[in-house]
Amino acid sequence: MEKEHNLVPEDTLWKRFLYRVIYRSDTRLGKLFDIILLALILVSTLIIMMESVPKLDQRFHLTFIVFEWIISLFFSAEYLLRIMVVKNKKNYIFSFFGIIDFLALVPFYLSFFFPVTKYFLIFRMLRMLRVFRIFNLLDFMNDGYLIVRALKNSSRKIYIFLLFLIIFSVIVGSLMFMVEGGRTGFETIPQSIYWAVVTVTTVGYGDVSPITPMGKFFAVILMLAGYSIIAVPTGIVTAEMRNKRQNLEKICERCGNEDIDDDARYCKQCGKKLA
Amino acid sequence: MEKEHNLVPEDTLWKRFLYRVIYRSDTRLGKLFDIILLALILVSTLIIMMESVPKLDQRFHLTFIVFEWIISLFFSAEYLLRIMVVKNKKNYIFSFFGIIDFLALVPFYLSFFFPVTKYFLIFRMLRMLRVFRIFNLLDFMNDGYLIVRALKNSSRKIYIFLLFLIIFSVIVGSLMFMVEGGRTGFETIPQSIYWAVVTVTTVGYGDVSPITPMGKFFAVILMLAGYSIIAVPTGIVTAEMRNKRQNLEKICERCGNEDIDDDARYCKQCGKKLA
Amino acid sequence: MEKEHNLVPEDTLWKRFLYRVIYRSDTRLGKLFDIILLALILVSTLIIMMESVPKLDQRFHLTFIVFEWIISLFFSAEYLLRIMVVKNKKNYIFSFFGIIDFLALVPFYLSFFFPVTKYFLIFRMLRMLRVFRIFNLLDFMNDGYLIVRALKNSSRKIYIFLLFLIIFSVIVGSLMFMVEGGRTGFETIPQSIYWAVVTVTTVGYGDVSPITPMGKFFAVILMLAGYSIIAVPTGIVTAEMRNKRQNLEKICERCGNEDIDDDARYCKQCGKKLA
Amino acid sequence: MEKEHNLVPEDTLWKRFLYRVIYRSDTRLGKLFDIILLALILVSTLIIMMESVPKLDQRFHLTFIVFEWIISLFFSAEYLLRIMVVKNKKNYIFSFFGIIDFLALVPFYLSFFFPVTKYFLIFRMLRMLRVFRIFNLLDFMNDGYLIVRALKNSSRKIYIFLLFLIIFSVIVGSLMFMVEGGRTGFETIPQSIYWAVVTVTTVGYGDVSPITPMGKFFAVILMLAGYSIIAVPTGIVTAEMRNKRQNLEKICERCGNEDIDDDARYCKQCGKKLA
Repeated sequence: MEKEHNLVPEDTLWKRFLYRVIYRSDTRLGKLFDIILLALILVSTLIIMMESVPKLDQRFHLTFIVFEWIISLFFSAEYLLRIMVVKNKKNYIFSFFGIIDFLALVPFYLSFFFPVTKYFLIFRMLRMLRVFRIFNLLDFMNDGYLIVRALKNSSRKIYIFLLFLIIFSVIVGSLMFMVEGGRTGFETIPQSIYWAVVTVTTVGYGDVSPITPMGKFFAVILMLAGYSIIAVPTGIVTAEMRNKRQNLEKICERCGNEDIDDDARYCKQCGKKLA
Repeated sequence: MEKEHNLVPEDTLWKRFLYRVIYRSDTRLGKLFDIILLALILVSTLIIMMESVPKLDQRFHLTFIVFEWIISLFFSAEYLLRIMVVKNKKNYIFSFFGIIDFLALVPFYLSFFFPVTKYFLIFRMLRMLRVFRIFNLLDFMNDGYLIVRALKNSSRKIYIFLLFLIIFSVIVGSLMFMVEGGRTGFETIPQSIYWAVVTVTTVGYGDVSPITPMGKFFAVILMLAGYSIIAVPTGIVTAEMRNKRQNLEKICERCGNEDIDDDARYCKQCGKKLA
Repeated sequence: MEKEHNLVPEDTLWKRFLYRVIYRSDTRLGKLFDIILLALILVSTLIIMMESVPKLDQRFHLTFIVFEWIISLFFSAEYLLRIMVVKNKKNYIFSFFGIIDFLALVPFYLSFFFPVTKYFLIFRMLRMLRVFRIFNLLDFMNDGYLIVRALKNSSRKIYIFLLFLIIFSVIVGSLMFMVEGGRTGFETIPQSIYWAVVTVTTVGYGDVSPITPMGKFFAVILMLAGYSIIAVPTGIVTAEMRNKRQNLEKICERCGNEDIDDDARYCKQCGKKLA
Repeated sequence: MEKEHNLVPEDTLWKRFLYRVIYRSDTRLGKLFDIILLALILVSTLIIMMESVPKLDQRFHLTFIVFEWIISLFFSAEYLLRIMVVKNKKNYIFSFFGIIDFLALVPFYLSFFFPVTKYFLIFRMLRMLRVFRIFNLLDFMNDGYLIVRALKNSSRKIYIFLLFLIIFSVIVGSLMFMVEGGRTGFETIPQSIYWAVVTVTTVGYGDVSPITPMGKFFAVILMLAGYSIIAVPTGIVTAEMRNKRQNLEKICERCGNEDIDDDARYCKQCGKKLA
C-alpha cells in the first residue's frame, strides 16, 4: 500500500530511521511499533464501547478520558510523523490507509464542539486491517485480496440484484399496506416496505408480522420467493469465486495472461501451448 | 425493447423528431427527456409513500394532490405521444414496457371511483427499469440479462422445488397442529402451515412458536431440515449461473470445445484462433 | 412408476378399458379421470384445512362431512379398482404410489374410532405428485428427478453434517445453560438446545434470547459460526448438482457409462473415444 | 486414530485380548464392547439433560445419581484399561480421542467440589464420533473427512471473512447506537453491536429492533448487505468442495490431465488407462 522507495539520499538519517520504524516491520523496532499501534487501536475501541455503558462510564469516567487523550495524542503525533518522513506526502495522505489514519483522528478533535461525534472514533478499528502487513500474513492477505476481488468483480451483478430486490420490496410492501389496511406495523407504506425487506431477507424480527389470514397468505408467498431469491447472490459470488480460484497458479509465458483454467492446454489469449 | 425503424419516410418531420426524443436517448433532448421522466417517476413514488403517512399527509395534502395531478397528466400525455409517434402501435402497446406504461396510469384514473386503488400507482416504479437504456449502461443490461436468463433457465427446477416445499409445509403444519393441539398460534391448520413456512424458510418471526416440549422437538427437526433444504435452490441457480458464464454461444470449429470463456481468443483445448 | 404391460390377452375387455383410463392418460377419458382425481385431492385437502378453523366448521360442518364421505368413498372405490385391473397386484400395492394411495384412505376409516387421526388425511396431498404424469410434464419430471438424485447422492454427506450440527448444538446449548443460569428460556438443557438450534439455523424466533451480556457475547459467536456453517450443505448440494448436470446428455456407446463430463473426449470408464 | 501394532510379543495374553476388545471392533466381543460404550454415552447424555429439568430431577433424582455413578465409574475403568493395554501410552493420552476420553471424566470428579461443572459432562457426546469406526462406516468416514478437509482448506478465507464481518458489525452497531440514541435495545454500543450481528446474520430474534424511521432505514440497508454478504462464505466453501471432489491425488501420466474423477479408470483427455 505504502511506497517503500520514497526516500532520496539527501534525507537526514533520523528521517530514514523513522520511516523504517513507522512504515515497515522488517526491523525489531518496526515490529514493536506496529504491535504497540495495534494494541492501542484495540484499547481505544474497547474504551469507546465501554464509555457507552452508563455503569462503566460512571465508575471509570476519568480513566477513560485520560486514556482517550493519551491515545489520540499518540495517533496525532504518529500521523504527523507519517507525513513528515514520507517523500511523496500527497500519495500517502490520499491513500486508503492515509484517509483512515486521518478519519481516526478527526472525531476526537471534533468532539470538543459536538460531543456526540466522539463515537465515530470507532472507525479507528479499520486501522486494524494493517494487521496483515504487521504479522507478514502474506497468505492471509492473498486470500483477503481474492475475496475482495471476487466481490468487486461481481459487484455490478449484485447492484442489479439489489435494484431488483428494492423495487420488489417496495411493490410488495405497498400491496401489503393495502392488504393489512393500516393494522399494527403496517400503518404506512414505508413501514410496510420495512416489513417486506425484513421478510424477504429472512431476517424476520417479528416486530411487524401479518395478522389477517389474507396478509399471512401473502407473507407465505413472499417468504417462499425470498427463499428462492437468496440463491441469486450466492450463485453470482460462487461463480466468480470459482473463476478466480483458477487464475492464480498458472500464467502464459508468451502474453502474460493470468486467466487460465485448470484444464486449459493452450492460452486462450494468444494460443501458446501451456507448459 | 422498442423497434427503432418503425418510421417510414412519409412521416411528418415533427413525428420523427418526437420519436427520437421520446424513444431514444442519443440526442441531447432525448437524454434530457429521459432524465426528467426518471425524476418524475422517483418523485411520484416518493409522494405515494409519503401520502400513506398520516402526519405528512395532513401537512402536505394539497401539495401531494397537485403534484400527483401534474405527474399523472404528464405521463398520460407521454403515453399518448408514444402511441402517436410510433409506427407499429400494437407492437408498442403490448410490449413489456408498453403494458407497464399503461398500468402506471390506470390507478390514477381509477382512484376517482375507488380511492384505495391509488396506491397501485407504486407500480410506476417498474418504469425505472428503463434506467439501463437511458444511461447507456450496456454492461449492466448485459449482467441483468444474464441473471434473468439464469433464473428463467432454472425456473422449472425452482417451481418443482417450491411444489415440494409447499407439500412439505402443508404436511408438517398439519402434524404440528395435532402436536400442539390448538395452542396459541396453532389454532387451525392454515395457521400451522403459516408457522411451518415461517420456520422452514428460516424467517422465524416468532409471532408463532412452539410451546410444548414435543412441539419444540418437532420444530428442531423442521429447522434442521430447512437449513439443509436451503442448499437446493442455491445449488440450482449456482449451477445454472456458472453454466451461463461460459458456454453462451461460442464453440471451437476445429475441436468442438464448447467450454469457451467470454474473453477467450484461442481455443484452450486445441489452440485454434476463434472467430 | 406403474408397469404398462401387465395385461395379458385373456383379460376381459372392460378390465383393459379401465386399466387405460385409470393408469394412463393417453386417452381422452383417461385424462379426464386424472384431472377429476387431481381436483378431488385438492378439494379434500382444502376441506381438511377448513375443518380445523372453528368459524368455518360451525357454518359448513355438514357440507364438509358430506364431501369428505363422497371423496373418501370415491378414493376407496378407485383404490380397489386399481388393484383389480392391474395384473401384478403386489407390485402396485407396494410401489411408492400404491402405499400413498393406501395411506390416503386409512385415516378416514380410522377416524371413526380415533377422531384426531382425521387430520392425517392431509397426506392425500402426496397423491398430487402424480400431476407430472397427468400433464405429460416430462421435462418437469426429469428436473424433479435430477433434484431428488442430487439430494440422494449428497444425503450421506448431509447426514454427517447434521450429526456434527446436532452434537454442536447440544454442547453449545449446555454451555449456554450454564452461562445464562436458568433465566427465562434457558431453564433446562433441552430448552437451551432448542435455542441453540433456533440460532445456528438463523431462524431466530426470539421466543428465547440471551439476556446477560455474557450470554449475548456467546450468542454472537454462535451466530457467526452458524452464518459460516450454512455454507457447508450448500457447498455439498451445489457440487453434487453441478456434477449431475453433465451426466444426462452423453453416454458411452461401448460401456454405457453415463457419467461423462462436458469436456471429456474419452470415456473415463473404458477409454473409448466419444463421438 | 489408534495405532494397532503397539503390542510386542512379551505382552501378556490378557493384555492382548483386552486390547483387541477395547481398541478394535473386528471381534464379536469387541463389537459388543463398542455398542455398549455407545449406548452408555447416549444414556449418560440423556441423564445430564433430564437432570437439568426440575420436574424430572425431583422424581428421579436418586436414579439419575446412581446411573451417573455407574457410568462414570465404568468410563473411568475403561480409561485406565485403555492406558494399561496400549503400548505407547503417551501417544494415546494426547491423541484426539485420548483427550476427549479424559475430558469426559474430569467433570464428574470435579463436580464433588464445584457442583456446576457437572454439566460439562455433556462433552461426553464427542465420544460418539467413534461411531464411524464401530460400524465400519468407511464411506461415511471418507465423506466426513472430505467435509472437514474442505472446511480446513477454506478456514483461512473464512477467518478473514469473519474479521471483516466483525469490524463491519462493530462499526454498524456504533452508528446505530448514535442513530437510535439509546432507545430500548440500543442503550450501549455493545448492545447495538449485538443487534448488528443478529441482523447481518439474518437470525433476527426481534428482542432488539429499530424503532425510529431513521433506524429502520438504516436496518434495511444492513439487511440487504447481509443478504448479499451471505454469499461469500458459501462461495468459499462451495469452490473448495468442488475442488476436493476431483483433483484429489490423481493425475494422468501421459497428458498431465489433473481433472480426474474418483471413479475414472481412463483419462478423459487422452484415453490413457489410469494406474
